[in-house]
Amino acid sequence: MTTETVSSNSASEIRGLIRKNNLIRPTAGLAPSHVQANLAILPREYAFDFLLFCQRNPKPCPIIEVLEPGEVEVKTTAPNSDIRTDIPLYRIYEHGVLTDEVTDINKYWKNDLVTFLLGCSFSFETALMNAGIPLSHYDNGTNVSMFKTNIETIPAGRFSGPLVVSMRAIPKDKVVKSVQVTSRFPSVHGSPIHIGSPEELGIHDISKPDFGDPTDFNNNETPVFWACGVTPQAVAMESKPPIMITHSPGHMFITDMKDEDYSVL
Amino acid sequence: MTTETVSSNSASEIRGLIRKNNLIRPTAGLAPSHVQANLAILPREYAFDFLLFCQRNPKPCPIIEVLEPGEVEVKTTAPNSDIRTDIPLYRIYEHGVLTDEVTDINKYWKNDLVTFLLGCSFSFETALMNAGIPLSHYDNGTNVSMFKTNIETIPAGRFSGPLVVSMRAIPKDKVVKSVQVTSRFPSVHGSPIHIGSPEELGIHDISKPDFGDPTDFNNNETPVFWACGVTPQAVAMESKPPIMITHSPGHMFITDMKDEDYSVL
Repeated sequence: MTTETVSSNSASEIRGLIRKNNLIRPTAGLAPSHVQANLAILPREYAFDFLLFCQRNPKPCPIIEVLEPGEVEVKTTAPNSDIRTDIPLYRIYEHGVLTDEVTDINKYWKNDLVTFLLGCSFSFETALMNAGIPLSHYDNGTNVSMFKTNIETIPAGRFSGPLVVSMRAIPKDKVVKSVQVTSRFPSVHGSPIHIGSPEELGIHDISKPDFGDPTDFNNNETPVFWACGVTPQAVAMESKPPIMITHSPGHMFITDMKDEDYSVL
Repeated sequence: MTTETVSSNSASEIRGLIRKNNLIRPTAGLAPSHVQANLAILPREYAFDFLLFCQRNPKPCPIIEVLEPGEVEVKTTAPNSDIRTDIPLYRIYEHGVLTDEVTDINKYWKNDLVTFLLGCSFSFETALMNAGIPLSHYDNGTNVSMFKTNIETIPAGRFSGPLVVSMRAIPKDKVVKSVQVTSRFPSVHGSPIHIGSPEELGIHDISKPDFGDPTDFNNNETPVFWACGVTPQAVAMESKPPIMITHSPGHMFITDMKDEDYSVL
């Protein structure tokens, strides 16, 4: 059995453990180098507008896979999976309000629900760390800092709202390298959207993130900003659909795909 | 006025001439280095499935822009355009059968129609020629050779069918270069899908293309295959929608975008 086969089994085995509720925890560090995905499930009535929103805003909303209405198996990137059970923890929003947090969504499932899996930053963070760029929120066990910006996404149908970005403290001598390595992964947020001047994005105090934890800066570090997968969830929530199901923060869907499957050049 | 502004005006001026029926001709060579796009217009009922089909098959179906139902202005890539008039020649298909060829589609327009603009090979062919790679169909004034393959696209809803490829005769010492320069343009078909062995794609006689004209080969040339924008049109036609509107072959939509806007690295 090749190394690749073992790793691939391991993603599917981990989904099996999650399915049986034997692994209710954040997924960071599980199945290393496998692509993990953000989840958004919406009624079919909202699906064309949301798919169009993702297509128009690929940096914050990089699509990994979209299932047909009612479909529960993530056929292409995670064969034999079941989206109703294979995420450790889900959040249920009704009319934009969080109403439940559950380990499976069987009781909420309907045949008109459409599942969207969107790329998350774990993939490009692995690339950054492999390139020798330290990420302090990994060392500290905190969440990355995230901010709403003054940049509007391109609206689609009923969906519109500001771009949300994540911010990382990058050593000044590694900023160029951070652009290069993340540019190779356009399907998982890709290159930064901004380097160095938070005020240009309408961010007035980088010590007070809108989501996640504050980031400590050394004198030799520059803030670098990437489009964030929180954007589509925030935008969808604003439209107050009768039901929307997401993963709980940090509890992602683990696919069989490797980060390198999504690299260009 | 900068060079860029002049060029940008020129695309919009050309659309203006086309709108007034003063330019009913194939668009190859017009507004050089501007992105030209394939057109597919479908009823809203078909739009989610078709958008999903394009998302699942980005190499043959690279999305340049999708309009909201009923919308006629290509807002992002061609502001102030009108999709009902700004293409020199359109084809109308009813239930999969060609029923009309017209210079504007005003009389067919309905508010539930959704416009898809998809990348075309002109962009990467410019990149090939700029890299010193000769393209014989340009010199001969013929159409590129296109073939149905034994590769199935990933189905979406009612859409499924074989991948169609275009074939170019590339000098053997330029094959690597042809991969490199087209890889920079993933939004307009990108890198080749195959080099050298037509039989691997189920193509038994490269002198008999399914669409377009035959290609002459010299001894020092290799057949190289790229995913082709005919794929989504062929697949959509198979589903026999009540109405589908496309551009007539070679009569594309000219956007304000430059090829380089779609390059990576």
